[in-house]
Amino acid sequence: MKGKFYGIGVGPGDPELITLKAVNILKDIDIVICPKSKKDKKSYAFEIAERYLGVKTEILKLEFPMVYDKEILSNKWKENAKIIFELLEKGKNIAFLTIGDPMVYSTYMYLMNILKNYDIEIETVPGVTSFCAMASKVNIPLASEDETLCILPLRKQMDNLDAILDAFDNIVIMKPSHDNVKLAEKIEKMDKLNDFVLTSKCGQLDEEISYDVNRLKEDIPYLSTVILKKRGLRENE
Amino acid sequence: MKGKFYGIGVGPGDPELITLKAVNILKDIDIVICPKSKKDKKSYAFEIAERYLGVKTEILKLEFPMVYDKEILSNKWKENAKIIFELLEKGKNIAFLTIGDPMVYSTYMYLMNILKNYDIEIETVPGVTSFCAMASKVNIPLASEDETLCILPLRKQMDNLDAILDAFDNIVIMKPSHDNVKLAEKIEKMDKLNDFVLTSKCGQLDEEISYDVNRLKEDIPYLSTVILKKRGLRENE
Repeated sequence: MKGKFYGIGVGPGDPELITLKAVNILKDIDIVICPKSKKDKKSYAFEIAERYLGVKTEILKLEFPMVYDKEILSNKWKENAKIIFELLEKGKNIAFLTIGDPMVYSTYMYLMNILKNYDIEIETVPGVTSFCAMASKVNIPLASEDETLCILPLRKQMDNLDAILDAFDNIVIMKPSHDNVKLAEKIEKMDKLNDFVLTSKCGQLDEEISYDVNRLKEDIPYLSTVILKKRGLRENE
Repeated sequence: MKGKFYGIGVGPGDPELITLKAVNILKDIDIVICPKSKKDKKSYAFEIAERYLGVKTEILKLEFPMVYDKEILSNKWKENAKIIFELLEKGKNIAFLTIGDPMVYSTYMYLMNILKNYDIEIETVPGVTSFCAMASKVNIPLASEDETLCILPLRKQMDNLDAILDAFDNIVIMKPSHDNVKLAEKIEKMDKLNDFVLTSKCGQLDEEISYDVNRLKEDIPYLSTVILKKRGLRENE
């Protein structure tokens, strides 16, 4: 019998914020894929999952190059998919890990889309997203009742940012370091801002939380997120 | 010592999609709040959490009326917050449950915002959202790379829906039953639709998944969600 391919979200970083389903799959999995890196550093997702693996689990290191060239990427992903397919054919169950949720800005979805072309069973296990974890951390609601919520990576979104800031009740901006000064200036000009919060390295030891837009103008880590809220729940407070 | 108040997301419905953190808190919690209902029916979130509760956990039934009158709601929430505060003062740890994530369209956030006025410790435990679970279920990515994602409840959003459908790469529409026929017509007119999927009662026994926009024109359950994707990952397939 062919093995099954699992895409597993391990949650936002806190090892306790993984789901029971992910833990139950990991303890019996035959092979877990670990991205090969230059310095032989373990991936963040692998570090979280490692403690939940069974003693018999094999670790398969595959190279997933961090480049923007679509052709190089696509060829490498196809090559990796072929390696995975051959192991699935031998009856091995295989897990690919992602931080957060597999369907929200992960690399898993590329592999999944290639593997969809093979005759195999794919199960994706959802996880807690970084933005949900961040909102819980600071006890600020992301969206309530009929409010709208938008999630946007800052890269390439600067052009229509004004329109988005205008149209949405709640805005989560990922990767604000891409153009943080300009973003801070735009936020300062918003006249209906109820809440602003910037978190960096959420859930990690050197986590930082700031409610001051000026902090956004300084150097901020790549792993930062901004939440903007125009309406609040003030009437109930 | 005062007790601690926990807002716990139990995930989208599958009892295995709860986090380890939620399970670890529930097994030691003193009191868990269960919304009182007319027919003495257990809440969906309580049904999921029940199996993880310790033997000593007390169940506190409180009334959270399902009405639109803001004053009635606000007064009742304040009354409940006072009951909770008095128990916290007696050193009890108390949990309030929500389906999905506590910061995304939950009733928890109202209670939390009132309790913020008291001198107590509040910890919110994030959970897997319904839309992440749905995307994983159908193996369709919610957003990749620099794509934007917007989440909107259909109620009151029909006016600017055209603009939103136009501006965003990926759109999650919650509660489409509010105006499903009109929504279906708008979707049919979109010329760059890559993927459409409608799920109802995701994760439940009578779950339904449809990729046909025509299904949206018929009667659909209240617990339905639509995912629209304008771009895909076709180049890698």
